[in-house]
Amino acid sequence: MNDIIMPTLVVDEEKCRRNIRHMAAKATESGVMFRPHFKTHQSLVIGGWFREAGVEKIAVSSLSMAEYFTRDNWNDIMVAFPVNVREINHINDLASRINLSILIADSSVLELLQTQLRHKTGFYIKIDVGNHRSGFALEDMDEIGMLLASASGNPFLEFRGFVAHAGQTYHTDSLNEVHKAYLTGVQQLNDIKNQFLINYPDVVTSWGDTPTCSLVNDFHEVDEIRVGNFVFYDLMQFHQASCDWEQISVAVAAPVVSRQKSRNEIVVYGGAVHLSKDSLDLGDKEIVYGEIVTLHAKGWERFPEPLYLNRISQEHGVFYCPDEYWDLFKPGSLAGIIPVHSCLAANLLKGRFYNLKAGEYFNHEHESGYTAGEQRFF
Amino acid sequence: MNDIIMPTLVVDEEKCRRNIRHMAAKATESGVMFRPHFKTHQSLVIGGWFREAGVEKIAVSSLSMAEYFTRDNWNDIMVAFPVNVREINHINDLASRINLSILIADSSVLELLQTQLRHKTGFYIKIDVGNHRSGFALEDMDEIGMLLASASGNPFLEFRGFVAHAGQTYHTDSLNEVHKAYLTGVQQLNDIKNQFLINYPDVVTSWGDTPTCSLVNDFHEVDEIRVGNFVFYDLMQFHQASCDWEQISVAVAAPVVSRQKSRNEIVVYGGAVHLSKDSLDLGDKEIVYGEIVTLHAKGWERFPEPLYLNRISQEHGVFYCPDEYWDLFKPGSLAGIIPVHSCLAANLLKGRFYNLKAGEYFNHEHESGYTAGEQRFF
Repeated sequence: MNDIIMPTLVVDEEKCRRNIRHMAAKATESGVMFRPHFKTHQSLVIGGWFREAGVEKIAVSSLSMAEYFTRDNWNDIMVAFPVNVREINHINDLASRINLSILIADSSVLELLQTQLRHKTGFYIKIDVGNHRSGFALEDMDEIGMLLASASGNPFLEFRGFVAHAGQTYHTDSLNEVHKAYLTGVQQLNDIKNQFLINYPDVVTSWGDTPTCSLVNDFHEVDEIRVGNFVFYDLMQFHQASCDWEQISVAVAAPVVSRQKSRNEIVVYGGAVHLSKDSLDLGDKEIVYGEIVTLHAKGWERFPEPLYLNRISQEHGVFYCPDEYWDLFKPGSLAGIIPVHSCLAANLLKGRFYNLKAGEYFNHEHESGYTAGEQRFF
Repeated sequence: MNDIIMPTLVVDEEKCRRNIRHMAAKATESGVMFRPHFKTHQSLVIGGWFREAGVEKIAVSSLSMAEYFTRDNWNDIMVAFPVNVREINHINDLASRINLSILIADSSVLELLQTQLRHKTGFYIKIDVGNHRSGFALEDMDEIGMLLASASGNPFLEFRGFVAHAGQTYHTDSLNEVHKAYLTGVQQLNDIKNQFLINYPDVVTSWGDTPTCSLVNDFHEVDEIRVGNFVFYDLMQFHQASCDWEQISVAVAAPVVSRQKSRNEIVVYGGAVHLSKDSLDLGDKEIVYGEIVTLHAKGWERFPEPLYLNRISQEHGVFYCPDEYWDLFKPGSLAGIIPVHSCLAANLLKGRFYNLKAGEYFNHEHESGYTAGEQRFF
């Protein structure tokens, strides 16, 4: 791994592909559609691995991301974020080229969409199943009815279904709670769908969040699963028991830059601008920013007693290292870090993905004029 | 501001230039060199504003950033981060073109530098004045001596001075503590410098952190100030009393995408991938991710009772908004957010800086192939 000289997202292709196949198989066995959320990886190459597993429809979290994936001919894309009407020109442009779906979480956006849409655009209605971030609740049935009635007169707006994201499952480590969130959320989704089934017999319910989609095996109560993080998983999901250690498919390679023997501390080039400041509370006020692993050409290994990235600033990461492992982390060597939240780490490092198996960098299309110069030194 | 359609860093050029002139004047009055840290803004345009204030030497936090600033002919650059020897080829390349300085925080990197450096490179020694992140302490005098003796035989290594960063000042809101950190740190720096003054009469002490550099007026105890955040300031610095409200020169413009009247909550397109997850603890367990302001063509205004960004996820931000301000934030409008940590927000939004006064975007050089397509819709 001599060509890894800066903080880099190391991808284990086999684990990644296994995660994809596993989730695709669960969807198939449940008889539901699989619309993976590509915001986690933001990668045309990894998108290709999904395509090889039979995936044709995707979700993303911004129009820019949708735009990016059109380059590799993805043409059934849901932007799974409440529609930002200030981007109406981009919506029209994308809708003229692909089968685009947007998300409505607030009736007030309808007026602008109705007057300014120029191309057929699908829309889903966001249902709040307990996350309390955005969307309509069960008691908003009348408002949903009015929204649909109003939209039905517009030739460019095509109602496609109801979408839920049980984001509250990211804040519990109780498997029971996760399971309960699924059961009650799905019930709410279906109660709403059934209310409108006569007028809209073809609409779907779309469900997505990695904790429930990892724990639940049979999804027959919904029509579609829309899940993203599972492609990489991360330390947060591992601690929530959403995945096994062996399913985590990414690690951040961080060059060791200095050591402090008096404190048994090691400083790496790997900080908030590479990993994000997302942290994990291990209890007893132990807040960590990643788990330290040894990196080698075929993968990575944990320590028998886990080592954690204990502190983080803009570019620095600091971890405590006991004497017995001290010599593994000399300045100039690489430390591996399993990120707390892989979506945010991948977003920050998206121009520097490294395929461990192939021994090569990918995602060069994310390099800006700013970073492209670095490539000469890889 | 109709051309702001996505989360964007809005820059108030006048405030920014005033911050620059103010710090430059303090340095001049103290008779010390001013080497601003450019990691906060990462912008050639803003670099130009520094140049107009007489700045010629800069600090950055990575070789990539140094590379970037060479494009606008900055040629005295200190990479103020412990040298990453895996980037030796890039170091050699830069050192062949500009007056480059690196930072040594660990003696063990010396061997590789001595065998692989091919061009004259300045180096500073990192002194730990209480931040306990990296560097040598007062009691490491012997080790520093050995390091200098060893380096003195190498034709490419030129010793330039001692560098300190009192990062602990970011974790206190006591002005006394900040002042004490300055006085004790400067004392330590000078104790070490004096020890080596006979052999190295020209070396400098370089001091940098925004809290002390904002509070202290007379820096004559050091030779150079190396400060970054002050160009923008942010909510953290404001709450630390490092700056007045009127000195904060950036706000993030975030499109409102949905509202929940039952909870009086407003959802904006502006999350962890735009602001970072850095937060501020206002006491009583109130953790916030930014302060909400109204944005207009000439600047922004606080609310009489401050409103805060209360929750954040990958792309969503959520804030509580009382009835009386409800109509200011309809979907399709813009909310302003004073970021908790402007360095991280600017890093995330570096391709979308907007000059309020000029009414135009800048920093286009940071756009990647990934985002460049968006520009058509601005």
